[in-house]
Amino acid sequence: MLNIALFGAGRIGQIHAGNVSLNPDCQLKYIVDMNHEVAVNTAKKYGAQAVSIEEALADSDVHAVLICTITETHADLIERSAKAGKAIFCEKPVDLSIDRVDACLEVVKTQKVPLMMGFNRRYDPNFSHLKNTLDSGDIGTVEMVTISSRDPEAPPSHYIKSSGGLFRDMTIHDFDVARWLLNEEPVSLYATASSMTSEHVKEAGDVDTAIITLTCKSGKMAVITNSRRASYGYDQRVEVHASGGMLTVNNMPESTLSMATEKGITSQKPMAFFLERYAAAYRLELDAFIAGLSVGVENYPIGEDGRKALIMADAAVKSIATGQVQLLTFD
Amino acid sequence: MLNIALFGAGRIGQIHAGNVSLNPDCQLKYIVDMNHEVAVNTAKKYGAQAVSIEEALADSDVHAVLICTITETHADLIERSAKAGKAIFCEKPVDLSIDRVDACLEVVKTQKVPLMMGFNRRYDPNFSHLKNTLDSGDIGTVEMVTISSRDPEAPPSHYIKSSGGLFRDMTIHDFDVARWLLNEEPVSLYATASSMTSEHVKEAGDVDTAIITLTCKSGKMAVITNSRRASYGYDQRVEVHASGGMLTVNNMPESTLSMATEKGITSQKPMAFFLERYAAAYRLELDAFIAGLSVGVENYPIGEDGRKALIMADAAVKSIATGQVQLLTFD
Amino acid sequence: MLNIALFGAGRIGQIHAGNVSLNPDCQLKYIVDMNHEVAVNTAKKYGAQAVSIEEALADSDVHAVLICTITETHADLIERSAKAGKAIFCEKPVDLSIDRVDACLEVVKTQKVPLMMGFNRRYDPNFSHLKNTLDSGDIGTVEMVTISSRDPEAPPSHYIKSSGGLFRDMTIHDFDVARWLLNEEPVSLYATASSMTSEHVKEAGDVDTAIITLTCKSGKMAVITNSRRASYGYDQRVEVHASGGMLTVNNMPESTLSMATEKGITSQKPMAFFLERYAAAYRLELDAFIAGLSVGVENYPIGEDGRKALIMADAAVKSIATGQVQLLTFD
Amino acid sequence: MLNIALFGAGRIGQIHAGNVSLNPDCQLKYIVDMNHEVAVNTAKKYGAQAVSIEEALADSDVHAVLICTITETHADLIERSAKAGKAIFCEKPVDLSIDRVDACLEVVKTQKVPLMMGFNRRYDPNFSHLKNTLDSGDIGTVEMVTISSRDPEAPPSHYIKSSGGLFRDMTIHDFDVARWLLNEEPVSLYATASSMTSEHVKEAGDVDTAIITLTCKSGKMAVITNSRRASYGYDQRVEVHASGGMLTVNNMPESTLSMATEKGITSQKPMAFFLERYAAAYRLELDAFIAGLSVGVENYPIGEDGRKALIMADAAVKSIATGQVQLLTFD
Repeated sequence: MLNIALFGAGRIGQIHAGNVSLNPDCQLKYIVDMNHEVAVNTAKKYGAQAVSIEEALADSDVHAVLICTITETHADLIERSAKAGKAIFCEKPVDLSIDRVDACLEVVKTQKVPLMMGFNRRYDPNFSHLKNTLDSGDIGTVEMVTISSRDPEAPPSHYIKSSGGLFRDMTIHDFDVARWLLNEEPVSLYATASSMTSEHVKEAGDVDTAIITLTCKSGKMAVITNSRRASYGYDQRVEVHASGGMLTVNNMPESTLSMATEKGITSQKPMAFFLERYAAAYRLELDAFIAGLSVGVENYPIGEDGRKALIMADAAVKSIATGQVQLLTFD
Repeated sequence: MLNIALFGAGRIGQIHAGNVSLNPDCQLKYIVDMNHEVAVNTAKKYGAQAVSIEEALADSDVHAVLICTITETHADLIERSAKAGKAIFCEKPVDLSIDRVDACLEVVKTQKVPLMMGFNRRYDPNFSHLKNTLDSGDIGTVEMVTISSRDPEAPPSHYIKSSGGLFRDMTIHDFDVARWLLNEEPVSLYATASSMTSEHVKEAGDVDTAIITLTCKSGKMAVITNSRRASYGYDQRVEVHASGGMLTVNNMPESTLSMATEKGITSQKPMAFFLERYAAAYRLELDAFIAGLSVGVENYPIGEDGRKALIMADAAVKSIATGQVQLLTFD
Repeated sequence: MLNIALFGAGRIGQIHAGNVSLNPDCQLKYIVDMNHEVAVNTAKKYGAQAVSIEEALADSDVHAVLICTITETHADLIERSAKAGKAIFCEKPVDLSIDRVDACLEVVKTQKVPLMMGFNRRYDPNFSHLKNTLDSGDIGTVEMVTISSRDPEAPPSHYIKSSGGLFRDMTIHDFDVARWLLNEEPVSLYATASSMTSEHVKEAGDVDTAIITLTCKSGKMAVITNSRRASYGYDQRVEVHASGGMLTVNNMPESTLSMATEKGITSQKPMAFFLERYAAAYRLELDAFIAGLSVGVENYPIGEDGRKALIMADAAVKSIATGQVQLLTFD
Repeated sequence: MLNIALFGAGRIGQIHAGNVSLNPDCQLKYIVDMNHEVAVNTAKKYGAQAVSIEEALADSDVHAVLICTITETHADLIERSAKAGKAIFCEKPVDLSIDRVDACLEVVKTQKVPLMMGFNRRYDPNFSHLKNTLDSGDIGTVEMVTISSRDPEAPPSHYIKSSGGLFRDMTIHDFDVARWLLNEEPVSLYATASSMTSEHVKEAGDVDTAIITLTCKSGKMAVITNSRRASYGYDQRVEVHASGGMLTVNNMPESTLSMATEKGITSQKPMAFFLERYAAAYRLELDAFIAGLSVGVENYPIGEDGRKALIMADAAVKSIATGQVQLLTFD
């Protein structure tokens, strides 16, 4: 039974806490949150204790930490946890600065602790079904990956301002999915973007609509389309064209009800947002982290995956700024 | 090149006339219609002549007749055409009275002329694809056939009154499809029906909503659901459950456009009515008639199929009247 | 916080136990199971105690019992629990004999305790979405309900033999759904059935393929199609035709992946069986029971619903035996 | 009744000939083809005459010409027809050289004759339904257009070599659709491409897989994905994201049959290729040409549309060659 310390008991932290309780091989020992009441209540619910970061890291019975705090604190918490010898699960990103990421991952490497990044989409049952089918070879070799990724609506201004912008905040998930499905590092990136959907995004100096093209040395390519606003709900689809045909993952509707009237046949919108669509993914992601710790193999997205996705996001920002294609180097 | 005489140049007659012109192996020689102007105009369009029934049947160069007149005249025209030695295509039904049908088919039998009944649904590319798949054995042996058949709206009162009622007018097509797909004669029939959708249908003493169950000796069964009104359009679907799985034919939408908004995802209604949905079926049906004449084989629905469908319709009427299950005998 | 005693910790009992732990307003206090080890382990997992029926019912702190034992024990446990003043949730059926059911429900009535029957399909999010839409009036008044209900494969012989037969074991759920959606009691029933899919079902004297038609006084009607074997998986669909159009609930696929190759476009089969398809329904069903107890209103399927569904199943058995339509009386 | 001269009676010429015969407002007067036998047979079929180009253009009773010859002859035939005062319908492209196109269109302009380019996709009922819905304003203002366009397999080497390459031969249709749906001229273009699907395409120095991104001044954008090979058939889909939601046009399947087995649910592939998918589009395109001549309004794709699509194709070629984004100028 692995003992877990949860850092951050906000929206995402609560989801991970629930999933820890569903996993028979681990349990929550400590809850750390700046808001003491939240920490105490969460601890109570799961039979854990509300403590400070220092106390949690000092306990040699804690095997792993889940970092679900605000972005600004990630790199610091990763380093402190690594130095305390804890296995680490961290929500993306490590940091918005690639230099800070590099320094942080160096500490992780030196401390030789496992670090899983929360690229939860790899654990969505639909996407993992697609990936497994690709890996089986049944559809031949990949030629093109297309990713449609749209949020139902833009986050509020204060979030936008500290988010690092569309590419580092939202597209970063798509960059990871693209790398995962291409199974080859892209060598160039081109992005075009505009602010069309949300006045407050434009005012914050960010973009909300984008197309990003990735090219690999082998000739494989990928395209990501993004929007911060889809009136019909959270749009998360993937198409993979391969030598043997096409694999498609569609959205999951709120229900399978459809209504046929003189106006047409109306079916349900996609599940509202990531908490609904990726509920299973969050659970399976945690299971993968725990299973990986048990067998000592990191067969999940690691710090390096987070770093590469950030490099791609930075390149997209530069592509927009210059209007030019960017070469990608991950070394 | 087969010479054709068309009896009746109304809505359906015009469709067959157009299809004759598209078939390279036949041509319209004569048009017969009570409305002389219609006959003349149609003849002009297709390079044919407007003549009387007598003139058309007297011409030994006429190989086949297409009977597209009103129901009341079908049996008489079949008999006269048979006695004149013509191959006959007749829109359903032969007659609304089974005794009249029996007498008429006796004449056809004596004269040894081909008689094809216009059960056009067998030639719908979707239904024939299903039938061919069944016949291939790929899905095993049939266990249950379910037929959904709904008109967009009830015909006007005068039509209802002379139609023979829901079962003889509308369900008769479904009875033929059921026999065709079961590939075994049903031995009993139960129908329940009511007048729910159209006040004028009720006033005409007819029903507009029905469920009919058919049972075969082998244990195979079928169910037909009917309505005279489907606000979402002409609903023509079939499901066949077999030992190896399920075959389904869905409606054909007006277009493949769908619109996703905050209200849901709306796709198009089915094609409006039989002229649209069965446009290809009418064409392929005529081609089958002509091809059958060419090779001398009646591999299409014949008079006996029309007779059996009428026997089933009569049984449905009796089932409603008595509230009881009816045994079916076709001898 | 309501204290719950669970009677029966088998497959279904485990599901309810898990759902109790997810509901913030109740907790498991006692586990009763003939297999002491199972009882002890389950009790341990949920912080409960393994006790005897007598002990559980004797504790005045127990507010409600969940009866998840074998069918033969249901009526007896309901009576004992009622006499002990406990609120009761019972898996269907109360009993396979209508006389026993009547006697049992009389006891419940006398004791004035709540009794919820486990007709879980009413809590499937897809079906309840359909029902809510019907109740909203947006689609007008109901005219016809069609229910497709197929199991992936027949249960083993020993199950079949003690099941009460297809209609009392499997169709009983569909009878409840039909009554719920028709919102009017049917007055007659006709069933046709055969043994086509599973040799051992035939040997057990049961049927595995059936069509059941229900007619209401208002003219509304319903049809249920059943099979004990659907190679493509658990098939649970509903269509409701109403004056304003059609509502349809389709199956939920295992994932939204589809594969397009030269052989066609292949999407996923429906979720494997009831544990997968109705996972959410089981959870929401328990929540409804607990919520109903909290507010003192039985807005869920009660004993009388179980009784009426059994009367319909008995009528279906008689319809098959006699080949005749059966009148339904629920008084 | 407009008299038509058909130049080129090959595959596409035959389609237009058939559609002329279906249009009540025009008739074929002359057939011109290098293969005299083809010309004679086609003329015979439609009651026309097989003549030379000179004869056809010299007849003042010829109102319009349909140019369906090989690409190399288009510009010359347009000029000669224009000088003869004929209205012109020409299959794309005017020419593969932009200079030649400019010169040719200058002649058309001077002669003031109508010139319709055969961008048939605008007349596909699915795409025109989408366009009409956009124009209605029901879905708000366009933000992003995504076009999926894949051929079932690459054409043979000799075709590839004289085709002008993927962008001028195949993508040119997509460029026209993009401009039509964006309703604004793009100002920059980026293309990435590779040879992945067909060895003989690579040997011919052409590409077979491509992603092309277009950006407009307003911030609207479009992405086109292409492949010369889709094992699942001719893939022709469009998605438009607008302020009010998303419009989607899907492929038309060969039939609506689906088969559910233990392997999944298999539906039919898209219609095989352009002759099937765009059969209705070819007919409606010709109707639009004839209707436009009747009312004297060119509300169809004109020479300038052909020119702009070619400029975009040239820019795509340059983008591939340089690896850089290309600015688009149409003046």
